[in-house]
Amino acid sequence: MPLDTFEVVVFENRFPAFGPDRRAGRPVRPATTGCEVVVYTPEHELTLAQLPLSRVRLLVDVWADRYRELGSRAEVKYVYIFENKGEEVGVTLHHPHGQIYALPFVPPFAQAELDASREHVAARGRCLHCSELALEASGPRRVLDEGSMVAYVPRAARWPYEVHVYPRRHVVSIAGLDDAERSDLAKALLRVTGAYDRHFGFSTPYVMAIHQAPTDGREWPQAHLHFEFYPPHRRGDRLKYLAGVELGAGTFVNDTMPEDTAAQLRRAARKVVPASRKSSIRM
Amino acid sequence: MPLDTFEVVVFENRFPAFGPDRRAGRPVRPATTGCEVVVYTPEHELTLAQLPLSRVRLLVDVWADRYRELGSRAEVKYVYIFENKGEEVGVTLHHPHGQIYALPFVPPFAQAELDASREHVAARGRCLHCSELALEASGPRRVLDEGSMVAYVPRAARWPYEVHVYPRRHVVSIAGLDDAERSDLAKALLRVTGAYDRHFGFSTPYVMAIHQAPTDGREWPQAHLHFEFYPPHRRGDRLKYLAGVELGAGTFVNDTMPEDTAAQLRRAARKVVPASRKSSIRM
Repeated sequence: MPLDTFEVVVFENRFPAFGPDRRAGRPVRPATTGCEVVVYTPEHELTLAQLPLSRVRLLVDVWADRYRELGSRAEVKYVYIFENKGEEVGVTLHHPHGQIYALPFVPPFAQAELDASREHVAARGRCLHCSELALEASGPRRVLDEGSMVAYVPRAARWPYEVHVYPRRHVVSIAGLDDAERSDLAKALLRVTGAYDRHFGFSTPYVMAIHQAPTDGREWPQAHLHFEFYPPHRRGDRLKYLAGVELGAGTFVNDTMPEDTAAQLRRAARKVVPASRKSSIRM
Repeated sequence: MPLDTFEVVVFENRFPAFGPDRRAGRPVRPATTGCEVVVYTPEHELTLAQLPLSRVRLLVDVWADRYRELGSRAEVKYVYIFENKGEEVGVTLHHPHGQIYALPFVPPFAQAELDASREHVAARGRCLHCSELALEASGPRRVLDEGSMVAYVPRAARWPYEVHVYPRRHVVSIAGLDDAERSDLAKALLRVTGAYDRHFGFSTPYVMAIHQAPTDGREWPQAHLHFEFYPPHRRGDRLKYLAGVELGAGTFVNDTMPEDTAAQLRRAARKVVPASRKSSIRM
């Protein structure tokens, strides 16, 4: 495909993690749920952090389009958009890409967040995330502001360098972001991923997860779109392993103070300027 | 310490993952919650799978004693007993040992299981685990029987070689096991860990987690003691990584059929005979 026509490509995963049950004797239905791959760029060596702003802005539009299209299918209850980056989180295909799972259920962590926010709305009259944002937008755990977007290390961070990126406005899904918010989001994503790379001094692995409203046809006023980043490193030369406490009890142990890691990332983020197309190509 | 007097040693963790908040200005209370280390044997090179049966039987008694003692403290709501084994799950201290967290709360995964079982009791009149056991004790996912104990790969296994070990009898905690059950449990644990080592052909890393009744002074009739084993390997040369789907959505992807991995472990378990003290020392 010629470079100048390649933008962001989405295709069905040839090796989907889930799909219709194809064992003998099971009825086969056309797949409406399933797995998609989102290819960020034709340039094999780049990462999200190194993409030009215009491309990340386009990526935001692609995510919004896929959320809307997949979410409109009757069987799809949740459009789960994420990126796994780096061998440390098991990635074997190194070309820069993300994934979309069009799920026939609301996954447990999304459901737990939605339940907690629903209770908070009932008790306080506002979304849980809006309350957290009011606390974090100017506090010691803030990593960066980017106009309508805020990034911070959450109070109960599970990963030392966990960062959440939120629109300040109460928006339930990525499809609801306006034009200016999409541009700010693209900048914020570049600055967060750039801050990781600059802080650690290497292309930092992470899981990026998008949490937003389910697409089951119900209203989810307690949902508030956000991105969560989980880098596995707790130091440049040390990974955080999940073991008995995390895997068997569901409780995360983290020996860093979120205020400390936020301060480190804040310093690194100050020096990150989202690249124009030209400077990205030179990299 | 001379070998013949050393049995199983329990001490407070010098580097506890949690404990009283010791920052300046915080009130300091004596620690009643906290972290303990359980040293299985003075022999540095052994693993649980290689211990003599008598020692594992003693270990069961130690777990039961610690459950009772720690659980009797007013602030301890859950006695979480577990073992992390192997560098693949982040272990840096290689001497064979397990850990106990005396937690001031019921951890989320334990709570989720208890909630599901309570609903099942309400709907069906019996504990969820008892219903599962009735299904698994003679089915294609069974790994082994050991008198009063059964081990199987659960239907919705998160890890390809995940195994759960249950007493057939409805017992809410390890302290409630009778003498014969404790001996059967010791044998079952040796055979499960031995089956892993034999199947993979190397000393297999795992997380072992004990789920049982909280110790908050309430009744937990829906609890049913069991051990869960999560080995990170999905093949001898390949680990399962947790990434976006597991960490960001709470949904596990597993491309093996539990009936297949159960059959493999069943074959391996048939050849495992818990060792007498002598044969263990020779190993």
